[in-house]
Amino acid sequence: MGGDDASKDLDALLEEVAEIARPKASEGELADYIPELREEDPDSFGLAVVDLDGTEHVVGDVDRPFAIQSVSKVFSLVLAMQKADAADGVRKELWGRVGVEPSGDPFNSLVQLEHEKGIPRNPMINAGALVVDDVLLDHCTDHHEEMQALVSELAGEEVTVDERIASSEEGTSGRNRAMAYLMQSFGNLHHPVDDVIKAYAHQCAVKMTARQLARASRFLANDGVDPATGRQILRPPLARRVNALMLTCGTYDAAGEFAFDVGIPCKSGVAGAIMGVVPDRYGVTVWSPPLDQAGNSRAGKAALHELTDRLDLSVF
Amino acid sequence: MGGDDASKDLDALLEEVAEIARPKASEGELADYIPELREEDPDSFGLAVVDLDGTEHVVGDVDRPFAIQSVSKVFSLVLAMQKADAADGVRKELWGRVGVEPSGDPFNSLVQLEHEKGIPRNPMINAGALVVDDVLLDHCTDHHEEMQALVSELAGEEVTVDERIASSEEGTSGRNRAMAYLMQSFGNLHHPVDDVIKAYAHQCAVKMTARQLARASRFLANDGVDPATGRQILRPPLARRVNALMLTCGTYDAAGEFAFDVGIPCKSGVAGAIMGVVPDRYGVTVWSPPLDQAGNSRAGKAALHELTDRLDLSVF
Amino acid sequence: MGGDDASKDLDALLEEVAEIARPKASEGELADYIPELREEDPDSFGLAVVDLDGTEHVVGDVDRPFAIQSVSKVFSLVLAMQKADAADGVRKELWGRVGVEPSGDPFNSLVQLEHEKGIPRNPMINAGALVVDDVLLDHCTDHHEEMQALVSELAGEEVTVDERIASSEEGTSGRNRAMAYLMQSFGNLHHPVDDVIKAYAHQCAVKMTARQLARASRFLANDGVDPATGRQILRPPLARRVNALMLTCGTYDAAGEFAFDVGIPCKSGVAGAIMGVVPDRYGVTVWSPPLDQAGNSRAGKAALHELTDRLDLSVF
Amino acid sequence: MGGDDASKDLDALLEEVAEIARPKASEGELADYIPELREEDPDSFGLAVVDLDGTEHVVGDVDRPFAIQSVSKVFSLVLAMQKADAADGVRKELWGRVGVEPSGDPFNSLVQLEHEKGIPRNPMINAGALVVDDVLLDHCTDHHEEMQALVSELAGEEVTVDERIASSEEGTSGRNRAMAYLMQSFGNLHHPVDDVIKAYAHQCAVKMTARQLARASRFLANDGVDPATGRQILRPPLARRVNALMLTCGTYDAAGEFAFDVGIPCKSGVAGAIMGVVPDRYGVTVWSPPLDQAGNSRAGKAALHELTDRLDLSVF
Repeated sequence: MGGDDASKDLDALLEEVAEIARPKASEGELADYIPELREEDPDSFGLAVVDLDGTEHVVGDVDRPFAIQSVSKVFSLVLAMQKADAADGVRKELWGRVGVEPSGDPFNSLVQLEHEKGIPRNPMINAGALVVDDVLLDHCTDHHEEMQALVSELAGEEVTVDERIASSEEGTSGRNRAMAYLMQSFGNLHHPVDDVIKAYAHQCAVKMTARQLARASRFLANDGVDPATGRQILRPPLARRVNALMLTCGTYDAAGEFAFDVGIPCKSGVAGAIMGVVPDRYGVTVWSPPLDQAGNSRAGKAALHELTDRLDLSVF
Repeated sequence: MGGDDASKDLDALLEEVAEIARPKASEGELADYIPELREEDPDSFGLAVVDLDGTEHVVGDVDRPFAIQSVSKVFSLVLAMQKADAADGVRKELWGRVGVEPSGDPFNSLVQLEHEKGIPRNPMINAGALVVDDVLLDHCTDHHEEMQALVSELAGEEVTVDERIASSEEGTSGRNRAMAYLMQSFGNLHHPVDDVIKAYAHQCAVKMTARQLARASRFLANDGVDPATGRQILRPPLARRVNALMLTCGTYDAAGEFAFDVGIPCKSGVAGAIMGVVPDRYGVTVWSPPLDQAGNSRAGKAALHELTDRLDLSVF
Repeated sequence: MGGDDASKDLDALLEEVAEIARPKASEGELADYIPELREEDPDSFGLAVVDLDGTEHVVGDVDRPFAIQSVSKVFSLVLAMQKADAADGVRKELWGRVGVEPSGDPFNSLVQLEHEKGIPRNPMINAGALVVDDVLLDHCTDHHEEMQALVSELAGEEVTVDERIASSEEGTSGRNRAMAYLMQSFGNLHHPVDDVIKAYAHQCAVKMTARQLARASRFLANDGVDPATGRQILRPPLARRVNALMLTCGTYDAAGEFAFDVGIPCKSGVAGAIMGVVPDRYGVTVWSPPLDQAGNSRAGKAALHELTDRLDLSVF
Repeated sequence: MGGDDASKDLDALLEEVAEIARPKASEGELADYIPELREEDPDSFGLAVVDLDGTEHVVGDVDRPFAIQSVSKVFSLVLAMQKADAADGVRKELWGRVGVEPSGDPFNSLVQLEHEKGIPRNPMINAGALVVDDVLLDHCTDHHEEMQALVSELAGEEVTVDERIASSEEGTSGRNRAMAYLMQSFGNLHHPVDDVIKAYAHQCAVKMTARQLARASRFLANDGVDPATGRQILRPPLARRVNALMLTCGTYDAAGEFAFDVGIPCKSGVAGAIMGVVPDRYGVTVWSPPLDQAGNSRAGKAALHELTDRLDLSVF
């Protein structure tokens, strides 16, 4: 089957996937801890699959920007791995301060942090992302700017930050501050809590589209090389490890279910995005704001299940 | 036997108790999280038993001031109960926001706070004391001043605050801030975290002597009436409840052991004080800085065991 | 006021207490894990206060027998303390294998057992009672017979065991067996699990009346001496320690609330009994089957609160 | 490069991998809870990689049998999935009774079982394997025989059970019995605890060689079809889900680290085996008895890391 035909088939298949997945949104709920999330349109739905050669297959609202929220944890981790790899090494700078194991506990963060001496389980949960930002504050002269530069490069166009969301995030960060102070009390936070919280709030407020996120995840499907530019973003083993972390820890307490039902590395955010990686093939992103009980996009999960099932994209 | 003889006998008995208890200090360790505690003389030992009629039986360093630390939780609770009892009632203002059960967990505070929606188990643990201070900030125009006024009144003389200790406490309050922000995230802290932390640090830095603390606890042995002045500090059922909380929760994770081995309501602090209440008879305080693993004065506990055993003071 | 008048007054007061407490039963629920408990009459209510001199003040159904269930933990502990005190000592035989601290965790037993290497928090929770029975199996040639002999002696008349209940208890002991096997895996159970479970099921099925239980607790109010016979059941310090354990651990997760609201050592059972001790004065028992959420008799707790409040019986 | 050359290269590479991995065994410890494990030769080391076409690449002690222990959990799960898929479906018979999430807690089993109403986190931990056996007891007329038949078929030759080990396992199963009774108390175990424990002890005592296990895992790399016989052992999506469970949950509390460092689905056992799956390519097994702190073969893990790294076998 020729490339063009296959491409057309994929477009058709995405339409079918969207048709099946969209109605599932009604089973979910919008995140409501800040006004900007409460105000999202629950009917928004976008699905983008971008090939390593740059072909983009899309359906729905793929050019409407949303806050990437926790999906940003992937990018801050990548930036920290770049910095650490170029300095004293990722093992020394990162993996002594944050683990690589699933957390397994819905009430994880504070309980485990306390039992495990302030070392977060992994960089995909909030406590871990705060440590990653603390590492970044060691290396970046301007954390906000470098984060935005990285995601803009990967997205192939300039992305912006919604300062109103950044400010809302900072204002409702009681639990994140609690975790930050607890880690500080164990000596695992080196910068002032306010600075770390600000950095994290800022990266959560980066706005991107489904299309841009799908582009931005392709380097993880490509041994760490951004296929658009040929630049090695991360060395291949490091890129693979980001994928491993996404698969085992990227979708809150439903990581096992995602591995089981979807079978590719994913990272979700509370605004309803799920960014996925299909090794050697695609960057993928789906966006639909209503969330299931585990905090993952309800329709988004359904879409990824259909997509990977029909195209046999599971890594297993 | 005449009062004078009994009094002499008690003085002699205190000497014996001190002789047995003092050497136990060598089995303990000074608290070391702030320099002021590290610098305490480990050989200090004072024991004071003050009768409701004002007779004072003392042995050792009973006039050397130390930071009362967590013993202050009793006084802030008493102040909050006074305020709440005069306003909307203790049940409404206090017991909906802090429990009355032992915590039972060495890693208690954050784990239980998270599982129990930001409601601390009791006002004798740090998280609970922070809520009590939050209540006080509603009622007091000057929290520091009113706390000092209450303890000075009960001690029968002016007590002061060691600002250096207050400042050290504030500077090492990572875990307390973590708990405060967690409670805030559950809606159980109404004032800014910084204000609550400052209030708590300040009360911990109140300096008193063993003699003063023994005097100050007498109203709890006297149905809430300060025997020195006749003033009703708390209504009798409220005073009894403070005693119940001290007995079940006043000595960290060793409350059961204290009930078992000592048998009277006690509250300890990390500077080595243990303040006790013998209903209808005495206010008691022992001070010896080295702590056992549970954080209670090692020699202090031994002294109280000997004292209550020999005089049959157990409430049981 | 003469003894007779006081006695009449107390009778009248008990009537008032019963009138206030009885209706609270409607807020509770019968235990339902075995048929015999489901079939209890929810309107049963009995309250007995027995003076050290033998005077009995009673109201309601004080002569109707019920299964003592967890109240038996006090008697098995007492029997084990007798045996251990006469052999290698309670510290060696008992307190190395079971603690004296409140458990503090509604899901306590298995969680804490696992974290704390198979050592139960205290002898008033199921896991602790199983260890106590394991100790008894070392010392008793016939555990059932010796338990019955002790409670019969203390009750002043022969008590019996309801074999149907014993059998139901044994048949629904999944969680108890789980705890027993877990303790066995930590080396803290020496006899076969089946034997220990059988012993425990048997003691739970002892049937007594409120009047008998009130009599039977008097030795704990009398420095360990049964006032009916003058026999020293336990040495005074050991008797006081039983009281301390009842106060801090005797009413499940509401021990703090009982200390706070009732103020005397109590032990409750799921058939609706609460046995209390007023040092130097009374043995007390109230019985009303419907339980509150913590598993304590709803009306029973109300009755004890009224009684101790009106007569100022709190130990605090 | 021709197949023969590649094959020779792989043989050479396995030698190198073995040379690097073998010495790591000295950093591990033999499991010691039953005598048969204590007596294993710590210097044993075998590594087998079996191609889907049947070519076998081996180094070391690949024909010495050992107890497969927890590796058997994969096979009992597969058997249960077969049975359930042919009856009321895996979702109804299995996934309502056992989850698919990593457990995340070193003290997981009992704690999580208690908090999560007797539903084990996943079928790769002991509690979950007991539920799987309980399901099998519904379907198998002879559990032992059917388990042995399945693994013998997959291994390509008859495998046996070491009855001495089965008996030792049964005799030291205190903790497993504790979990079984706890699940029973929540209604999540339908057969007598003794029967379930016996079934589990038996499957742990199946003895296989590294070569046999590597063969036996190939169907999981081949969309559920045993390449030796062409028989569909599991439907493709079910086979993929077994792989997902192995990757996220198959190596105790180090599943994240394995995903991160090894990158293929693995299941380990306390006798030192680790069985791995390389989708579309190989069945793999390494065996070296000394275990690391997480309970996985120390040298085995090193070997798999080297192997997957050098051959770029990671699924990510």
